[in-house]
Amino acid sequence: MKAPVRSESPIPLPKGFSFSAVAAGIKASGRLDLALVEAAPGTTAAALFTKNLVVAAPVEVGRAHLTKTRGRMRAVIVNSGNANCATGKAGLRACERVCREAARSLGVRAAEVFPSSTGIIGVPFPAEKIVAQLPELVARREPTQEGMDQFARAIMTTDTRQKLASERFRAGDSEVTLAGVAKGSGMIHPQLATMLVYLFTDLAATPSQLKQLLSEACDQSFNCISVDGDTSTNDTVLLLASGQSVVRLKDSGVQKKFANALLKVCQSLAEQIVSDGEGVQHVIRLLIEQAKNRAEALQVARAIAHSLLVKTAWAGADPNWGRILAAVGRSGVPVDPGRISISIGKQMVCNGGVGCSFDEARAHQDLAQPNCDIRVRLGRGRASAAFVTCDLTAEYVRINADYST
Amino acid sequence: MKAPVRSESPIPLPKGFSFSAVAAGIKASGRLDLALVEAAPGTTAAALFTKNLVVAAPVEVGRAHLTKTRGRMRAVIVNSGNANCATGKAGLRACERVCREAARSLGVRAAEVFPSSTGIIGVPFPAEKIVAQLPELVARREPTQEGMDQFARAIMTTDTRQKLASERFRAGDSEVTLAGVAKGSGMIHPQLATMLVYLFTDLAATPSQLKQLLSEACDQSFNCISVDGDTSTNDTVLLLASGQSVVRLKDSGVQKKFANALLKVCQSLAEQIVSDGEGVQHVIRLLIEQAKNRAEALQVARAIAHSLLVKTAWAGADPNWGRILAAVGRSGVPVDPGRISISIGKQMVCNGGVGCSFDEARAHQDLAQPNCDIRVRLGRGRASAAFVTCDLTAEYVRINADYST
Repeated sequence: MKAPVRSESPIPLPKGFSFSAVAAGIKASGRLDLALVEAAPGTTAAALFTKNLVVAAPVEVGRAHLTKTRGRMRAVIVNSGNANCATGKAGLRACERVCREAARSLGVRAAEVFPSSTGIIGVPFPAEKIVAQLPELVARREPTQEGMDQFARAIMTTDTRQKLASERFRAGDSEVTLAGVAKGSGMIHPQLATMLVYLFTDLAATPSQLKQLLSEACDQSFNCISVDGDTSTNDTVLLLASGQSVVRLKDSGVQKKFANALLKVCQSLAEQIVSDGEGVQHVIRLLIEQAKNRAEALQVARAIAHSLLVKTAWAGADPNWGRILAAVGRSGVPVDPGRISISIGKQMVCNGGVGCSFDEARAHQDLAQPNCDIRVRLGRGRASAAFVTCDLTAEYVRINADYST
Repeated sequence: MKAPVRSESPIPLPKGFSFSAVAAGIKASGRLDLALVEAAPGTTAAALFTKNLVVAAPVEVGRAHLTKTRGRMRAVIVNSGNANCATGKAGLRACERVCREAARSLGVRAAEVFPSSTGIIGVPFPAEKIVAQLPELVARREPTQEGMDQFARAIMTTDTRQKLASERFRAGDSEVTLAGVAKGSGMIHPQLATMLVYLFTDLAATPSQLKQLLSEACDQSFNCISVDGDTSTNDTVLLLASGQSVVRLKDSGVQKKFANALLKVCQSLAEQIVSDGEGVQHVIRLLIEQAKNRAEALQVARAIAHSLLVKTAWAGADPNWGRILAAVGRSGVPVDPGRISISIGKQMVCNGGVGCSFDEARAHQDLAQPNCDIRVRLGRGRASAAFVTCDLTAEYVRINADYST
């Protein structure tokens, strides 16, 4: 029983991008595992990366390439099935080789290729398999929805479905399109997680404009979700702007519309990631209110979202608010338990730190839905935060106990 | 498949303590759920409590009683099946009433009774049921090993077995005995967890001497374990010293012997708690070495012990060291991944942040044992810490998804 898919279909395509995907034999299953995006000349780029100190080779290389080209990218090459992490200098060289060969096939500079990898950590990176498939991958590229869909499938690991979202808005006589593709279903926690996100737009904007907008959108989306509290070594969010719509970010009224579209796409992808979380049956939206500031609201949200006792209670649709209260109490925020209230769905279940009488059957029913809101009021101030998380099921354990062996 | 019991049997009895237990009907199962210890006149006491800001009524009352009597206690009354937490003023009054009635039955002052509760949070406290059983409970008390064993059974919740440990040492012509009883199997994390520990000795010592020794022993035992990362609202460690051995802590050579015995008993109980953790199949001892100081070694240990991806890999006896490396990378300690090495059992599996060739079948076999050591060297300094934790199994999820409903 999975939470419902939120992505609308079909996804409109921004101008200036071609997509392709092939099965290179990195995944033992023989499924699609290698994907390419080619971007039009002049495409600008900005990226955010994992905060983990252990970073994969493609994160190091991608960061260096962005610096070297001052935020100009012509291609993205992504593989699933191997994270190219903890692979040492050999891993770095393998990643650079893939970029170099892809650049040659496309007739661009190596530094204009942005690499990503996702999958198991610590296994030597099969650059050979990738290089062997490059001619096929390049030949197949096409500026179509189907190509984008194939790209979205090829980057999946334990994901059960591809994740896409898009927004479109008018600016004068022109139209701007933003489309996003994501993967991720485990190791999901604030500060990005085994999560790869690619955002494509035909707007024209400078790399520094893109970076600023991307940071703001991420803070309200990918940094407000948690599946299992683990932060991956490979997390990347990349925003590419081809400029082919001829609309510029600095045109009147465009920045606000684009920021809004970017936030919507990022939030949709973030929710798709949580609802496709490994073994997830219930997506829970935590609404933390009456905090002194947003930072402490998020701190409380993370303590709740990270509690095994809370997450397993949700797996049983159990309205055990005592565990939520206990998680708030150990969050590190100096709360006064006597001022805390908790609601499940539309019912208050705890008021002033003490249980109230409520309809348990209804609370159980609310929690048994694919989506449920839980509201925690701290009685400390006026700030709030929304945070999307999920239950922890026996299925999650099964998936993760069997991964590499 | 449970890790083997480590407690030796029979447990010698320190002089000056009588024990009893009854079934008061707080647990729906009808099992023992109410326990009493009576201590000889002049018994001194020291306690440590949960760091959670949401604390149960007995924690508030116990703390106040210790202050009021300046560390003199004559009795301990413990119930399982209800935590008396998030029960508001009614819960406080109910706890005080139980202490008052128990004091009257024993002919001591109410403040000389130390209360504890463990079980579900947020359910009104059934003081009536307890008060009704007090005459029986008091009548049954006896200074025997069997009485102590019954006490250990009565404080259990999801524990599958009682937890006892003891040490004895000679001082001159006399003998000093220390016996400890604990409960706890979920919500177990540093800073104490749903864990109740009672330590009884016939040594003579002042409350402040006891407090100092207890803090030191806890730092090396109960604060170095984690089952699920949740810190309970009720955690308590209480040390009672009856003085009936006529040996004083300040006698020559006694302090060192006693500190040593206390540490051994606490470490044994801490390991028993982890190995009886909910759904636990494998107990893992993390040895974090080459840290700059003990604090950062513990910070790394907790990041590993708290990672769902690591814990589920252990459930599958999967030597997936990449997940351990990733957990170290997000621990907050500024590690250099290139200096990290990881060993599973006696084999090094990662050196300088990169995988080494190792016998995977053997590593799998080592992890499949009830106990396995994992060593992480950080290459930063000379400090180290040992930390005991466990795998996360589907059985843990099952136990905790069904608790209150």
